[in-house]
Amino acid sequence: MKLNLSSGKVDMSHGSGGRAMTNLIQALFVKYLDNDILRQGNDGASFDMPIDMGADRMVMATDGHVISPLFFPGGDIGSLAVHGTVNDVAMMGAKPLYLAAGFILEEGFPLTDLESIVASMASAASAAGVAIVTGDTKVVEKGKGDGVFITTTGVGVVAEGVNVSGDRAQAGDVVLISGSMGDHGIAILSKREHLEFDTAIESDSAALNGLVADMIGAAPQIHCLRDPTRGGLATTLNELAAQSGVGMQLNESAIPVKRQVAAACELLGIDPLYVANEGKLIAICAEEDTVNLLGVMRGHPLGRDAAVIGRVLEDRHHLVQMQTRLGGQRLVDWLVGEQLPRIC
Amino acid sequence: MKLNLSSGKVDMSHGSGGRAMTNLIQALFVKYLDNDILRQGNDGASFDMPIDMGADRMVMATDGHVISPLFFPGGDIGSLAVHGTVNDVAMMGAKPLYLAAGFILEEGFPLTDLESIVASMASAASAAGVAIVTGDTKVVEKGKGDGVFITTTGVGVVAEGVNVSGDRAQAGDVVLISGSMGDHGIAILSKREHLEFDTAIESDSAALNGLVADMIGAAPQIHCLRDPTRGGLATTLNELAAQSGVGMQLNESAIPVKRQVAAACELLGIDPLYVANEGKLIAICAEEDTVNLLGVMRGHPLGRDAAVIGRVLEDRHHLVQMQTRLGGQRLVDWLVGEQLPRIC
Repeated sequence: MKLNLSSGKVDMSHGSGGRAMTNLIQALFVKYLDNDILRQGNDGASFDMPIDMGADRMVMATDGHVISPLFFPGGDIGSLAVHGTVNDVAMMGAKPLYLAAGFILEEGFPLTDLESIVASMASAASAAGVAIVTGDTKVVEKGKGDGVFITTTGVGVVAEGVNVSGDRAQAGDVVLISGSMGDHGIAILSKREHLEFDTAIESDSAALNGLVADMIGAAPQIHCLRDPTRGGLATTLNELAAQSGVGMQLNESAIPVKRQVAAACELLGIDPLYVANEGKLIAICAEEDTVNLLGVMRGHPLGRDAAVIGRVLEDRHHLVQMQTRLGGQRLVDWLVGEQLPRIC
Repeated sequence: MKLNLSSGKVDMSHGSGGRAMTNLIQALFVKYLDNDILRQGNDGASFDMPIDMGADRMVMATDGHVISPLFFPGGDIGSLAVHGTVNDVAMMGAKPLYLAAGFILEEGFPLTDLESIVASMASAASAAGVAIVTGDTKVVEKGKGDGVFITTTGVGVVAEGVNVSGDRAQAGDVVLISGSMGDHGIAILSKREHLEFDTAIESDSAALNGLVADMIGAAPQIHCLRDPTRGGLATTLNELAAQSGVGMQLNESAIPVKRQVAAACELLGIDPLYVANEGKLIAICAEEDTVNLLGVMRGHPLGRDAAVIGRVLEDRHHLVQMQTRLGGQRLVDWLVGEQLPRIC
C-alpha cells in the first residue's frame, strides 16, 4: 500500500514493524536523510572508528524534543532536534559526526507535517555537516502523545589537547556569550500566545559546531562551553558555578538582549536571563585568551554580537551575582519552578 | 526543595531546566545509574576512543520505548529500554559499550514508579555490562504523553574481521533462531487484556550481547544477526530476505513455541510468528558453520532452545515460504497493518 503523503495521517500500523512502517521509512526518512550509512538498512549504523581525525576522545549526547508548537518562527521541531544535539556535542569541545533520530508519533498526525519536519531535519543536518545514520519510529494512540516527539543522539570526536568541561572554570576566568539572550523562548511564547509585535521575533535555533571549531582552533585551551537552553543564561551559569565550585560576577549592561525581545519580556513579566536560547553559547576562558577568543567569535556569523559579560570569582557558596543596569547588585539564582514549558 | 520520592509526582518544573530538574536528576538518575562518565555532569558524555579493543568499526543504534503497560511479567519499560538497544547494537556484530537515555515524562507520573524504572534500567545495564553515560529529561502536560517514554541510544565496537549485515544472506545459508517465539508479545497482551493462564507467560526480555559474543567468538564469519521484535519472526525474515535479495524456506515444526504461548495465540487468533520477541535472535550463516554455531548457542543460557529453522534460497521475488506442520506449503508474508500496538 503506497503512502499518501499529501493527505494521509499517521496510523497505528506505522509503528507495527510491518509493511506500513517500512513504507513510511522509505518514503520519508530514507528519501530525505539519505546517506551511505543510513542506507545500510540495518537496525543500527556501522561506521569506521574515527581514529584518523587527530582525536583521542569521543563524545555522546542525547536530547528529547517536545517543543510546542511544532512549527515556529525561525524553525521547527526537526531543525531544532538537529541543532539541539549538535550543540550538546559541540559544547563538549567535540566535532559532531553522526546523529541517531528516534520518533514517537501520535496516531492521526498529518504525514504532510511529518514530511516538512523530516525535510527540515535533512537540511539542518546537511548545513551542520553531520549525517543522520540510524533511527526508530514508534506510534502511540491519539491522546497519548502530542503530534511528534523527536529524540536525537549525537556522537563526535574531541581533538587531542582539548579539554572542555563544566568543572574547569577558575577564579580569574572570563565569561563570554556569543550573542543576544532570549530570542528562542520569546519566539515560541509569542507564537503560542498569538502575540503580535512590530517586528517578528525569530528563534535563534542554529548549529554552533562551526563557531566552536573556530573558537577551539584559536584557543584550544578554552575551559568551559555550554549552551544556555532551558532555564536560560541564569540557570546555565549557576550550573557551571556549582560544577566548578566557583562564583561569578556579571555585568547586566554587557548582556545583549534584542530590543523587541526585551519589550516582549517586559510585557510578559519574564526575565530574559531565564529564557531559553537554541543558537547561543557561553564560553569561559583564561583572561589571556579573552581578546583572541572574542575576535574569533565576532568574526563568525553566529557570534557577531559576542560579548564579555562577567568574571569567575572564588566563592564557596557558588553564587552568580550581577551588577544591574542601575548600578545595584543582585543575586542571579537558578530558575525555580517552571517558566516556559515545552520550549525545546 | 527536596524530592518526595515516595508520594511525589512528576510536575512541569521537572522539565524546566532549573533547580527541580537538577534535583530529579541527582535523586534518581545519578543515584541509580552512577558511573565515572555520567558523573562528569556535562550535557554529554566524554570517553576514550575505543581503539584498544581490536576494533576498527563502530556501531550506533537507537530505539524509542513506548510499551504499555509499563510494568509486565518479566520486565518493565526500564529493563526493556536497556535490552532493546543493547540488542540492536549486538545484532550489528558489535560489543555494546555505552548507552544514552532520553526520558519523556507525563506530568502527574508517580515518582515512585519512575524510581522503579530507573532502578530496573540500572540493574539491566549492569547485567549487560554497559554503562548509561548521558541522558535527558523532558516533561509534557498531562494528556500529552503516557506516563513515560524512554529513547535509548547505544554505541559499540565491531571486532576486526566481523562483518554482520542484513544484506549478507546467500542461497545455501542456514537460518537459526535462539529460542521460542512469541513470549514477549503474549506476556504483554495477557497483562493488557487481564487474561489468566495456568502458567504465567513471562516476557523473554533480555540482553543478547553475551550470546552474540560467544557466537562471534566461535564463528566470526556469521552473515546476519537480527532480533525479531515488532512484526515477529515472519516480518524480520522478510526484511532480511528483501535486504539480501534472496528467498527462504522454513520448516514450521522446527520453530519452538512454548505450549502456553501457542495456547494463548490460538485463543486470541494470533499467529506466533508475528508476535514480538525481546530476547531472541535470528542468525544466518554458511552451512559449514551451522553445527558449531548451534552448539555454542545451546551452551548459552539464552540459547538453550536454539534451532535450525530453515534455509536461504535463490528467489527473485524474495519470498519467505514455510512447510507447515501438516506438510503443506504456505507463504509467510510481512505483517500487514497492525497486530499488537505499543509492544515495545
